[in-house]
Amino acid sequence: MRQSQLFCKTKKEAPKEAETISHELLARADFIEQTISGVYRFLPLGFKVFKKIERIIREEMVNLGAQELYLPTLQNKQLWLKTNRWQTIDPPLFKLKDRHQKEMALGSTHEEEITDIVRKRIKSYQDLPFYLFQIQDKFRNEMRSSGGLLRTREFVMKDLYSFHTDEKDLIEFYHKVRKSYFKIFKRCGLKTICVEASSGTIGGELSEEFMILSEAGEDRVLICQKCDFSANVEKIGNQKLCPKCKGNLVKKNSIEVGHIFNLGTKYSKAMGANYQDKDGKERPIVMGCYGIGLPRLLSTIVEVYHDEKGIIWPKEVAPFQVHLIQIPSPAYSGAKMKKRTEFSSPENIPKVKKAAEKLYRDLLKQGIEVLYDDREDKSVGEKFADADLIGIPTRIVVSERTLEKNCIEIKKRNETKTKLTKMSQIRKYVG
Amino acid sequence: MRQSQLFCKTKKEAPKEAETISHELLARADFIEQTISGVYRFLPLGFKVFKKIERIIREEMVNLGAQELYLPTLQNKQLWLKTNRWQTIDPPLFKLKDRHQKEMALGSTHEEEITDIVRKRIKSYQDLPFYLFQIQDKFRNEMRSSGGLLRTREFVMKDLYSFHTDEKDLIEFYHKVRKSYFKIFKRCGLKTICVEASSGTIGGELSEEFMILSEAGEDRVLICQKCDFSANVEKIGNQKLCPKCKGNLVKKNSIEVGHIFNLGTKYSKAMGANYQDKDGKERPIVMGCYGIGLPRLLSTIVEVYHDEKGIIWPKEVAPFQVHLIQIPSPAYSGAKMKKRTEFSSPENIPKVKKAAEKLYRDLLKQGIEVLYDDREDKSVGEKFADADLIGIPTRIVVSERTLEKNCIEIKKRNETKTKLTKMSQIRKYVG
Repeated sequence: MRQSQLFCKTKKEAPKEAETISHELLARADFIEQTISGVYRFLPLGFKVFKKIERIIREEMVNLGAQELYLPTLQNKQLWLKTNRWQTIDPPLFKLKDRHQKEMALGSTHEEEITDIVRKRIKSYQDLPFYLFQIQDKFRNEMRSSGGLLRTREFVMKDLYSFHTDEKDLIEFYHKVRKSYFKIFKRCGLKTICVEASSGTIGGELSEEFMILSEAGEDRVLICQKCDFSANVEKIGNQKLCPKCKGNLVKKNSIEVGHIFNLGTKYSKAMGANYQDKDGKERPIVMGCYGIGLPRLLSTIVEVYHDEKGIIWPKEVAPFQVHLIQIPSPAYSGAKMKKRTEFSSPENIPKVKKAAEKLYRDLLKQGIEVLYDDREDKSVGEKFADADLIGIPTRIVVSERTLEKNCIEIKKRNETKTKLTKMSQIRKYVG
Repeated sequence: MRQSQLFCKTKKEAPKEAETISHELLARADFIEQTISGVYRFLPLGFKVFKKIERIIREEMVNLGAQELYLPTLQNKQLWLKTNRWQTIDPPLFKLKDRHQKEMALGSTHEEEITDIVRKRIKSYQDLPFYLFQIQDKFRNEMRSSGGLLRTREFVMKDLYSFHTDEKDLIEFYHKVRKSYFKIFKRCGLKTICVEASSGTIGGELSEEFMILSEAGEDRVLICQKCDFSANVEKIGNQKLCPKCKGNLVKKNSIEVGHIFNLGTKYSKAMGANYQDKDGKERPIVMGCYGIGLPRLLSTIVEVYHDEKGIIWPKEVAPFQVHLIQIPSPAYSGAKMKKRTEFSSPENIPKVKKAAEKLYRDLLKQGIEVLYDDREDKSVGEKFADADLIGIPTRIVVSERTLEKNCIEIKKRNETKTKLTKMSQIRKYVG
């Protein structure tokens, strides 16, 4: 895409409400913008990264054999009364009335919805197991949103729900999801650890969280220095010694990027979601649920991958793979041009432009996602600063200087050195 | 996908609240389910069709050069006060308060949001024109929802917004969108006509609707029998004579599947979204907006394409391209089998099954989307009834009878005749 046409206005200053580096950088790079406390817009660049993350998650859900569906935001009060969560869920539900004064809630999680769907359709053990997922908005009436996208009141979440005849079958699948989660986070460039967690008002038998060790997070994780034990402080309290081996526990500043639950029969019992076993006996369906908040994952990536100049996107979630920058002759760069046509006369500019345009077309032809900085009213300094802020993995510069040597200049965003290389060698560095 | 694993329970009876044939068939085929009045779930088959439609629309938006973004559902009251629509928009907004008693609205349309984004970023005529779109939930506090997915309170909508220096530039783009809309509906299998419409509380200078002539619709369109004039009754009232040529007007029962607006400067003036022209003078940005409701489009397709047995999906929006049906020996079909293993002993069944499984794998390898009815506890009658109800364009049957002739049986959902053909000839009929 041509940067002259991209809807993106980078800023020198972060919004004053920004508390975390990810919020600062994502706002300055014009990926996101807060509208009211804890509610965000995703501008085109931010949306591109969002869709990359969504695609990774969707692919891995399909790999697990899960089927996608759409569950409504406006939810039936009666279902929430059945599970006794209408008043008790924390954070509380956003509630509203329609013009007939009928009360509803905005979905903050979808256990009630999905259990209702399943109880109407499943009769026999032969129908089990199966797995359903959704990637949609959730709404949580938080007392205080914080950390930019880390804790918001409206956000897109992937929720996977699984349904089983018994706990053994659930545990088997639960471990598959665990593996799939490690893979998802790895594809996003993140190394996670999985720790025991408190199940909060979702409830159930067991839950585990996927954690990134980071200072921006709200969670505190205790990690044993001797054995493989680790747990959220919220789960086991502020202990100093490992409950397993009595080794020392170390506390780490962390962000939760995923949470998986063995729900057991909590919801199926409350809502009457049963199946007939082989002997014709009615039994409650055993359930699991597995969540990933997409905006939080996106901003966690920025917490981990950035420097003082901006974001450094991991390859698979970057909005583009290559940032191609065309630099006009020094005599013209930085000049405030009123008409773009002024550029077309000097001899040297068409040459650089021509080479950059050709390279742009060639890269597109090879299926490489390119952001092409074709802007003619920006200085070299502004172009480089934008490139560093936006954080595309590979920067390619075409200028008079590189063309003299019949070369282009390549720089990886996460390295400092630049390298002159022949056009024909580009494939080695990108894609 | 194997039908034994598909989360779908077809029903013989339609829900009693169903008023339209599309609601009846989509509910019976387990594509959708109403939860509260005007609020629907999309089950996996329905979601598949939804995603196909979404893809068509997204592709055509990108073809127009538009950039996608995410606009929040929870909206700032202040923006709605600025345009004076907080109280006046029809149908009214869903309003709610957070735990700090701060009032917000659920987005029913996003002119306020998008204009706010643009006014903060656009300064010069050089930034114009550009086009932004979103595909997201909208919430409308309707007095009465009706016609299944035709008028709902929560639904996904594609909204494209365009921004221009002047009306001439807008009109040029407006006509491109018009063309693009005809293409979108054509790809969905629908022949639409474009008529003058009332702009309602969206407002602006001019608006046109894309109409399907159908009995299920709420709209009445007047079409001139002599010239090319056509308009919504809502726009011009119940006239008998064409205002253009005085020819007779005929009234048709219609569904609106798309609505495009020349908004002029209504929102940019109200919210101060200006640009500097070439002479440095501040001018309001000229805007257009262009909507398509996805669930309504989906159900309109069913209104147009069905028969007494079920849905007949047009190729490009069908959940699968091929419905492959395996029919065990007559001696076994229809029998209520308690254990699937009972099928594996008789000689003839493995043969049919083996051939069907091989064909399934071959079709998948060719990149064809196949729903494979591998169910062993269903009769031939049940399998055919499900296939007709679900409405996949091509049905392929593998049975003892077809295998004797070294053939398979092919039937198009929109035709009555079946045809025996060699396996090797399949490519002629599908894909």
